[in-house]
Amino acid sequence: MRRAFPVLCVLACISVAQAQTPDEIVAQAPKSDWQDIPPSDLLVMRLSGHRQVVIQLAPDFAPEHVRNIVRLAQAKWWDDGAIVRVQDNYVVQWAGRAPHPSLPSQASAHLPAEYEHPAAKTPLTPLPFTDSYAPIVGFSAGWPVGGDGQHIWLTHCYGMVGVGRDMPPDTGDGTELYTVIGEAPRQLDRNIALVGRVLDGIDALTALPRGKGEMGFYREAAERLPIAQVRRAADLPVSEQPHWQFLRTDSASFARYWQTRANRRDRFFVRPANGVALCNVPVPTRPVSLENRTPR
Amino acid sequence: MRRAFPVLCVLACISVAQAQTPDEIVAQAPKSDWQDIPPSDLLVMRLSGHRQVVIQLAPDFAPEHVRNIVRLAQAKWWDDGAIVRVQDNYVVQWAGRAPHPSLPSQASAHLPAEYEHPAAKTPLTPLPFTDSYAPIVGFSAGWPVGGDGQHIWLTHCYGMVGVGRDMPPDTGDGTELYTVIGEAPRQLDRNIALVGRVLDGIDALTALPRGKGEMGFYREAAERLPIAQVRRAADLPVSEQPHWQFLRTDSASFARYWQTRANRRDRFFVRPANGVALCNVPVPTRPVSLENRTPR
Repeated sequence: MRRAFPVLCVLACISVAQAQTPDEIVAQAPKSDWQDIPPSDLLVMRLSGHRQVVIQLAPDFAPEHVRNIVRLAQAKWWDDGAIVRVQDNYVVQWAGRAPHPSLPSQASAHLPAEYEHPAAKTPLTPLPFTDSYAPIVGFSAGWPVGGDGQHIWLTHCYGMVGVGRDMPPDTGDGTELYTVIGEAPRQLDRNIALVGRVLDGIDALTALPRGKGEMGFYREAAERLPIAQVRRAADLPVSEQPHWQFLRTDSASFARYWQTRANRRDRFFVRPANGVALCNVPVPTRPVSLENRTPR
Repeated sequence: MRRAFPVLCVLACISVAQAQTPDEIVAQAPKSDWQDIPPSDLLVMRLSGHRQVVIQLAPDFAPEHVRNIVRLAQAKWWDDGAIVRVQDNYVVQWAGRAPHPSLPSQASAHLPAEYEHPAAKTPLTPLPFTDSYAPIVGFSAGWPVGGDGQHIWLTHCYGMVGVGRDMPPDTGDGTELYTVIGEAPRQLDRNIALVGRVLDGIDALTALPRGKGEMGFYREAAERLPIAQVRRAADLPVSEQPHWQFLRTDSASFARYWQTRANRRDRFFVRPANGVALCNVPVPTRPVSLENRTPR
């Protein structure tokens, strides 16, 4: 009987610890669990109306596509381009100015199919949950991935950025990009090259009027939202470069974050799910001032 | 050697059959595979700017909540109400006019937790794929559901409509409703009462500016999109009643539809997934003229 109180106290402590929300866990993550994204991996898209979208590129997963996209940005390919397609519960897509000029000489029109990556060369923090699309799912260096033991591939979660293409064997040259704005269209995994994700300003894309044409394309040029310019952050003046970090997916904080997303025990929840889908574990990211960047 | 051509022909025929898109299968479904939705199960929300949203209610799954919602509509609860919350990749939520008047006398403020339903009383067409949230997933009378052998429950897929509530044991009275506009927040399954889904006009909600307040609530009343009125279709003049059908989820057409969504072999796809998530199999629905309704 005399031990009842301490035992209850231990249970209460565990209960309090479990009652954190995922956001609270992220807010408490130590600085060492956050990783800087270099400005060479950031693409800054400025839209008409002074909205800005920041995209993190994934050169480790699609090096040739990313290299082409950087060259296209340096050649001002998307300046005076536009958002050309908004399909509800699917994608927003953008393109260079129409009619399309020829590709700049430094960009390639023929890229390899960078749909998957050798597993042996790729770090993986697996999620212990089943998935309808891949034998293994988890995270690799901050990215949501699927895997089969042999290969690892980026997955079509909300906000991921991919390369529009025509019919196979075309793999897309990177001139038309899209981002996912609905239920994860994972059927596209390993069928299209994914090249990054939107870090900031996605609502400048998701809140656009849906296109009334086939596949959500705008019928009239006047419906398209103009793009002012797209630049790699590293190519912008230092004062205009955004700085972002992601929560390291091999960190203790990230482990607690996904565990809590899979088992919500904060006050609102009646019954935790004991599971979570890969794309329902968005990797936490945050803007950071230059002086707060993590020392290398 | 002489049999090579017929054999190839058989393979080609199978290949052609497999190369249909899900949309093509739906377009070819016979009339008998479509089921009328009675006007008593439809809620019509008219928004400022002449946009209309049509919602199918699910009285078989949440009878008390649906009954309350119908009574609230009949008492004009949402007339002069507004869209009050738009949280990116999560929900759009609407409410009656503010400050809230007292509940109409015919509506109840205390409803039971209609979070799940006895499996024995509920038809189920299971999907043969694993799920991170439920031991069984599939479809029941046109609705996406999870199950565990004992119970069946509606799932938080894109476009599903639920009842906002405060902390447990509150279950919500139906005065504030929301719809899912992003990656399926399945952690809410069996934690909130789902009462229906948006059939038409969801882009009038999904394309709204995101709220800048906490949880996506609009900070200023002027940001809210006004609701002109919400009525049950059966309570509207006959000439204003919309008519909708869903593809029967126990039909052969629906089976081919989900099988094809799980194994895309149409020309665009390099590699079929051999699987699909429950919420990536949206149940096909369509408007129908009164004279084309299926005879009972």
